[in-house]
Amino acid sequence: MSWFAWGDPAKAATLDPGLRDLVSQVLRAPLEDLPPVPEERVELPPSLLGARLREALAGVVGDGHVRTDDAVRLRHSGGKSTPDLLSRRAGSADPAPDAVLYPADHDEVQRVLEVCSAERVAVVPFGGGTSVVGGVAPLRGGFRAVVALDLRRLDRLVSVDTTSMTAVLGAGVRTPHAEAMLAEHGCTLGHLPQSYEYASVGGYAATRSSGQASSGYGRFEDMVVSLRVATPRGTLETGGPPASAAGPDLGRLMLGSEGTLGVITEVGLRMRRRPERVLDEAWSFPDFATGVEALRSLAQSDVRPTMARVLDESETFVGAAMGGREATPGCQAVLGFEGTGTEVEARAASVREAMAAAGGAPLGPDPVAHWRSNRFSAPYLRDTLLSAGILAETLETAASWTDLLPLYTAVSDALTGALEDEEGGAVVMCHVSHTYPTGASLYFTVATAAGAAPLERWSRAKRAASDAIAAHHGTITHHHAVGTDHRPWMAAEIGPLGGEVLRAVKAALDPGGVLNPGKLIPEP
Amino acid sequence: MSWFAWGDPAKAATLDPGLRDLVSQVLRAPLEDLPPVPEERVELPPSLLGARLREALAGVVGDGHVRTDDAVRLRHSGGKSTPDLLSRRAGSADPAPDAVLYPADHDEVQRVLEVCSAERVAVVPFGGGTSVVGGVAPLRGGFRAVVALDLRRLDRLVSVDTTSMTAVLGAGVRTPHAEAMLAEHGCTLGHLPQSYEYASVGGYAATRSSGQASSGYGRFEDMVVSLRVATPRGTLETGGPPASAAGPDLGRLMLGSEGTLGVITEVGLRMRRRPERVLDEAWSFPDFATGVEALRSLAQSDVRPTMARVLDESETFVGAAMGGREATPGCQAVLGFEGTGTEVEARAASVREAMAAAGGAPLGPDPVAHWRSNRFSAPYLRDTLLSAGILAETLETAASWTDLLPLYTAVSDALTGALEDEEGGAVVMCHVSHTYPTGASLYFTVATAAGAAPLERWSRAKRAASDAIAAHHGTITHHHAVGTDHRPWMAAEIGPLGGEVLRAVKAALDPGGVLNPGKLIPEP
Repeated sequence: MSWFAWGDPAKAATLDPGLRDLVSQVLRAPLEDLPPVPEERVELPPSLLGARLREALAGVVGDGHVRTDDAVRLRHSGGKSTPDLLSRRAGSADPAPDAVLYPADHDEVQRVLEVCSAERVAVVPFGGGTSVVGGVAPLRGGFRAVVALDLRRLDRLVSVDTTSMTAVLGAGVRTPHAEAMLAEHGCTLGHLPQSYEYASVGGYAATRSSGQASSGYGRFEDMVVSLRVATPRGTLETGGPPASAAGPDLGRLMLGSEGTLGVITEVGLRMRRRPERVLDEAWSFPDFATGVEALRSLAQSDVRPTMARVLDESETFVGAAMGGREATPGCQAVLGFEGTGTEVEARAASVREAMAAAGGAPLGPDPVAHWRSNRFSAPYLRDTLLSAGILAETLETAASWTDLLPLYTAVSDALTGALEDEEGGAVVMCHVSHTYPTGASLYFTVATAAGAAPLERWSRAKRAASDAIAAHHGTITHHHAVGTDHRPWMAAEIGPLGGEVLRAVKAALDPGGVLNPGKLIPEP
Repeated sequence: MSWFAWGDPAKAATLDPGLRDLVSQVLRAPLEDLPPVPEERVELPPSLLGARLREALAGVVGDGHVRTDDAVRLRHSGGKSTPDLLSRRAGSADPAPDAVLYPADHDEVQRVLEVCSAERVAVVPFGGGTSVVGGVAPLRGGFRAVVALDLRRLDRLVSVDTTSMTAVLGAGVRTPHAEAMLAEHGCTLGHLPQSYEYASVGGYAATRSSGQASSGYGRFEDMVVSLRVATPRGTLETGGPPASAAGPDLGRLMLGSEGTLGVITEVGLRMRRRPERVLDEAWSFPDFATGVEALRSLAQSDVRPTMARVLDESETFVGAAMGGREATPGCQAVLGFEGTGTEVEARAASVREAMAAAGGAPLGPDPVAHWRSNRFSAPYLRDTLLSAGILAETLETAASWTDLLPLYTAVSDALTGALEDEEGGAVVMCHVSHTYPTGASLYFTVATAAGAAPLERWSRAKRAASDAIAAHHGTITHHHAVGTDHRPWMAAEIGPLGGEVLRAVKAALDPGGVLNPGKLIPEP
């Protein structure tokens, strides 16, 4: 993965002249040419890993698996948020880890944690490195050194059970690799977030990820049937049986713990059979509110699509303009159905009736096909826009159906209010991509001129949006997790006693506090 | 509720002569006549609640809501397991609570906990009192006194939102009352465990309950969208939005905490529309293994019944004999479908195909109607059998589909082995009543002669079964919870580090340790 951008440099997006005109017109800002600094000009702080410590760690993972060279440290100096990329593009990779470790298996992870806890070295677990909330920022947190614990070598299919339809995967397995291994057994996880090509299954578990087809396959946390977790105090294993009433579900305490309570090394997952049939249908609605109501009726019925999203008017318009297509008025919904042949047909027929009754007009499969072909490419466009002096970033939340549209308005207004100024305008777009019987997610995309101080500009907008979320019954994050960026809002999210519970669990599992300092858990 | 038996004394079961003959023949034991002692002969330990403490508690809940009379204390001296009833029937209600408190609302619960924590008084939360695992046993645990905290006055529908399809209910609301209040809004929870008539929604949450229609409506923990929990350290509120990635799900830490971490006072729940149509179908299978495979195929498909259970050969035979019907050979499955008219028909048609393909023969709706009419009555029969000198008790577990039949055999053998002796034989029956994509529950019913020392006899059988569960990848409890009875197996279930996590959370929320001592959480 590129050190200053998302993904594969060969797949970088281009800005065609039409899109350039559109962007500069809508944002009232001229496009610039702002390439990243060359890699050799990026400044990294020196590694603080002393020889004795290096030897102790090499004693666990092997000498070749302790890396302190700048190229490797740079590539573990943070995640893939717009602020992360802005900093690196400008030539700063501070903080950077003092070393990057590549353990081979659970036992090596376990021993690394024991060494680091004894030696007061901070440990930042690193899966795919795709965090957009500062989750893998190598913060030293007052310790002697900080190491990134890269889990890519934990890449095995540990076991598979096609009777119980479960598989145990190493935490470092990336999704395409997982899907390839499970496909040999006719199975799939069905988990496809936008970060799909790079994110790891351990990262999904640690952040309570949600994929684009969550309506049908569920959130990642709902697929997890067991976990193996290394902690400075030893190994914790959770789950196994399909359900239990034997006390609180301790697996759920590890899911979403973002490497602050332990390092997830193996993930037991529910699989599904690979779908025989995929059927797509797009719908048009007169406005976002009507489209949202249509999705609510689906989410609360017994017959649901596998994938359902509805774009607001702004995102519908921009999507059409970028695809060079005539924009339909109102807003667009894209639905996908996966399953066996007759079952998919029956489900789609039932949903078709519901969508028409809810005021929708059918658009056929083409808009969904267009969405599918671009579903993982938005981060590439974001990077190209950054090179043209345009900030493009996303943020997300979820709320009950009753709270959803007031929250949508409040966050949209907050973003627009924070960004409409003499440096240009802002485009705020939104879609609902994850629906539940009791509510749904909102996913905002914002584009605006980077201006003279882009980090401060985005930080102001993000703060305004987050305050609006907290004030309007939203969660501070539906699927991006907390990291550093959402941590200031965690006290409001879980209350003072919730914070104490997390700190108590951390003290029990990580008494030295070396695991991912500065993330997730609010200060007392 | 009767002090020595389940439920309403007016509904007591009778043993008709045919059933008497069957029981005594199969169990090789003569039936006896062993009525409970009269209430006035039951011995209770004296109340240790001193005048000052009584005054302090009356200052919170009002003088009339602190009860120390024997009639009330007897009715809070434990739950409804067979050992509970054997003790009380024999005239012992020791332990009994020193007082029973009836707080009016969350704030009174909160203040009671503060007083009890400061005064070193153990608190046993008491919902419907239906625990069969010792969950409401009033253990003093080394404290000055022990009080039962009866939550029946927290019986309000706090709020209802038919857009988001959620309702907040007071923890003391019993299910029929909840259903009546929600029915006014056209809604239902769909949660019907055997304890349905008496159990409270707070109890369901505290024990991770599962209802008979869990295939369609989900486990109770999956219906919970928010919780309000009183603790000695203050109030914890969890949930709200339909999904979140803002750290671990702290609501899941309270679900299943059995009153050891806090007292759940309000439960926010997902509702469903009341079904328009209910359709029942029974099926016959040549043997249990084939029936289980049929249920697995349903649980792993996209089209499922709302309720699905399959009885083993023994339970199929006994059920038919008790109903005075000809026993069909092999084993029986009962399926129920709930939803809208056309949707139910379509689903049932699809399931019909799957069941036939799995080797089933249709039996029509009558066996399901018979099951429905008797679904809440088994505990009454248990009590009548106790009066005839026959022990009848249940236990349950869950495992992956791969582990399910070996576990079934191991537990059956353990029970039979522990009970087949000179005092008589045992009938061990089993059904699968909760299915998941990755596995299912097993629910065993055992009948055997009480013998000379019934408590010891049952204890021996229970221990053998629990050891077999632990050795064969089952969970020590799928839906009865832990209480005192399953606590010896918790260390094996969650591991030493899991125990430390629970103790750390308890220390944070209940530093004095007064909440439900002796339950759930294993000793270090």
